[in-house]
Amino acid sequence: MPSIFTKIINGEIPANIIAEDEDCIAFLDIFPLVKGHVLVVPKQEVDYLFDIDDELLGRMMTFSKRVAKAIERSITCQRIGIAVIGLEVPHAHIHLIPLQSVEDINFSRPKLKLSEEEMKGIALKIKSNLK
Amino acid sequence: MPSIFTKIINGEIPANIIAEDEDCIAFLDIFPLVKGHVLVVPKQEVDYLFDIDDELLGRMMTFSKRVAKAIERSITCQRIGIAVIGLEVPHAHIHLIPLQSVEDINFSRPKLKLSEEEMKGIALKIKSNLK
Repeated sequence: MPSIFTKIINGEIPANIIAEDEDCIAFLDIFPLVKGHVLVVPKQEVDYLFDIDDELLGRMMTFSKRVAKAIERSITCQRIGIAVIGLEVPHAHIHLIPLQSVEDINFSRPKLKLSEEEMKGIALKIKSNLK
Repeated sequence: MPSIFTKIINGEIPANIIAEDEDCIAFLDIFPLVKGHVLVVPKQEVDYLFDIDDELLGRMMTFSKRVAKAIERSITCQRIGIAVIGLEVPHAHIHLIPLQSVEDINFSRPKLKLSEEEMKGIALKIKSNLK
């Protein structure tokens, strides 16, 4: 069965998409730790990040960097943090999280509840800041 | 003033080094969240990970993958998680953390206290599992 992220990639499930290229897609996490929390996902459905081949892994990081710079221009933060955990959805994904403090990247915290309108607004802002 | 990581790279401060190449070094975090918590650091002293050029960023990930596979072979875990925070030491670094649960990557938790002997033993084991 395709993962929930493959369903997003295939347009079967809606998402607030930020950027997309041949290899990767970036969209807002529906359970954000903070505003502007984005997931970067390879289109190839690989469970474990460190099973991805070197070349694609490199391209995922370049893609993540471009998205991170756009988040920085959109959300007040010190910088963008990274987390890869991978114990839930079996499709590798990089969390990009705007940080004001280390607490912002604590996955044990309750997630934010944002309206669909707020989510759309954040996605539009980040997209407009892509270079 | 050189960062604490540059001092480790230059051999001015001791560390439990796991691996080293032209661009990167990996050593045990002296404040581990769990046993086998490793830092990957570029030899170039750049503060923010997303300011590193694309090529070096790619090589850091390939290097991290090789080290992560060695940690997996050495420490009981589900997989290796990644965190990049960067609000303390102004020299970019990737945390590689063996995960049994999401709590293992919670930086707000108290750090482990391991003896120097235990740290040396962990480093030796991971080094012996590098391929």
